[in-house]
Amino acid sequence: MIGLADVEAAATRLREVAHVTPVLMSRTLDRMAGGHLFLKAENLQRSGSFKFRGAYNRIASLPPGTAGVATYSSGNHAQAVALAARLAGLKAVVVMPEDAPEAKSAATRGYGAEVVPYDRYREDREALGRRMAEERGLVLVPPYEDPVVMAGQGTAALELLRKVGELDLLVVPVSGGGLIAGSATAAKALFPSIRVIGVEPEAGDDTKRSLEAGERVRIEVPRTIADGLQVNVPGELTFEVNRRLVDEVVLVTDREIVQAMAFLCERMKVVVEPSGAAALAAVLAGKLDVAGRRTGVILSGGNVSAARFAELVSAD
Amino acid sequence: MIGLADVEAAATRLREVAHVTPVLMSRTLDRMAGGHLFLKAENLQRSGSFKFRGAYNRIASLPPGTAGVATYSSGNHAQAVALAARLAGLKAVVVMPEDAPEAKSAATRGYGAEVVPYDRYREDREALGRRMAEERGLVLVPPYEDPVVMAGQGTAALELLRKVGELDLLVVPVSGGGLIAGSATAAKALFPSIRVIGVEPEAGDDTKRSLEAGERVRIEVPRTIADGLQVNVPGELTFEVNRRLVDEVVLVTDREIVQAMAFLCERMKVVVEPSGAAALAAVLAGKLDVAGRRTGVILSGGNVSAARFAELVSAD
Repeated sequence: MIGLADVEAAATRLREVAHVTPVLMSRTLDRMAGGHLFLKAENLQRSGSFKFRGAYNRIASLPPGTAGVATYSSGNHAQAVALAARLAGLKAVVVMPEDAPEAKSAATRGYGAEVVPYDRYREDREALGRRMAEERGLVLVPPYEDPVVMAGQGTAALELLRKVGELDLLVVPVSGGGLIAGSATAAKALFPSIRVIGVEPEAGDDTKRSLEAGERVRIEVPRTIADGLQVNVPGELTFEVNRRLVDEVVLVTDREIVQAMAFLCERMKVVVEPSGAAALAAVLAGKLDVAGRRTGVILSGGNVSAARFAELVSAD
Repeated sequence: MIGLADVEAAATRLREVAHVTPVLMSRTLDRMAGGHLFLKAENLQRSGSFKFRGAYNRIASLPPGTAGVATYSSGNHAQAVALAARLAGLKAVVVMPEDAPEAKSAATRGYGAEVVPYDRYREDREALGRRMAEERGLVLVPPYEDPVVMAGQGTAALELLRKVGELDLLVVPVSGGGLIAGSATAAKALFPSIRVIGVEPEAGDDTKRSLEAGERVRIEVPRTIADGLQVNVPGELTFEVNRRLVDEVVLVTDREIVQAMAFLCERMKVVVEPSGAAALAAVLAGKLDVAGRRTGVILSGGNVSAARFAELVSAD
């Protein structure tokens, strides 16, 4: 569906636009884990998460004369689309739940997007997004169900691997599955023997179950502090990629996520949101065999308010 | 006393040893400040602060056969010397107040150093450090009163300027004065018209007063949350450099520092300790004319516990 060439084309579009985020390393961390860890700090990406990569790749691929874009998201994809559209000089409309945190809608408006509120208990956001797009002549930029979005997300792994070389494992948080689909595509093309591991919250194991069942399994909307990972069914397109390329999905508890956030704060000096810390949480909680190996870990985002962050890292 | 060549020699010694720390940029920040800001993230440096640069430069310059090093510090310099000595395969002894935070002595021991406690109310740490060094045949690595240490610290500015090119202003926190002395040396050699601005906490304005008086002025030990900036008199050697190269020193309140820390947490996704946020605090509080200019800001360190960080950023 997508290949290395698509991810490389995305990297070319993102050059000088996305940040080349740093790869964080620490002897202390390596000693704790018993292997070499390479943390790709997408919390330092523009708009605060890897989502900028996919959104910009999609928007920069639109034909000239496009009026603007629309999307539905209460989270990182909203801010990513808003910023990417502004950089491309396009109008952006974001359908967002009317009870979304004020900080998130403010950030989205801050990047110049129009926020259209909806009632999450009575309205279907995808249908609403599609209708907005049709009525106003906008192009819908979905959060993960799009090969060009997936290819953009894959540039996170491509950059990491180009910088540090071959890895034995690549550990990636899983929500709709776009980040891991793009990342696995790039990683397995470059290094066929790399193992690509997804991480989901215990309560939100839809992709793990789906891979085990060999088909998409829908679960209850999960209750977890990892608000970016609250998807309850894998995407159709992403699942097609992930069933072939993802070797395993492991689960982490909210407590393990908070411990990873506190570690990242105290030892690595970075602010990572709960969803963004899930992959490292799996490593620190001993759920993966990283001993003596070279393991890449994607810290996928950092969009959390200072107050909420403080509450979480001091709770442990 | 030191020149660009010394800083360049330090950069060569630090290559592949120190992290080339990222330069953080943000449109939001630029809009708030009205100019272009480039934040040099030394909180992401090894050992958690720029201090590693000076300590390693000094230790890597020691003659073969040196038995080990000693120093006195309760803070970032202690961890920096401990780590630098371990990397050089040397023994390190650190004289530290017996009531220093357990986290700091633990971190220093974690890097393999021997911690020698002293009574800060009855003993003189410098004299004790010198005695330890003499008795045990160790070389003393002072926190700033040493040209080789100063030259090492200057590599932070050198790296920043080599990466982003000419700047109009360079804003640097001031404690003993080693970081700004090394940084000003590199900066003014590369770009003679750059203005180098020091930042001190309001309560700890010893360098500001000293520059105004034209001689070193000693003040009361300052009470400030910026524990890394609690020096009460400029160093002799550092003052000799800074009186010639530093254009101005501005002061910030503890509240302004906390606001800068919260901004760095929420918008830039990094954990910066109070001392490390002082330079950005000066910019955000409008104490410098950065409008329409290109300004470099050194975020000097990130060594603060998660609990203390949480307490500070949620206080505002």
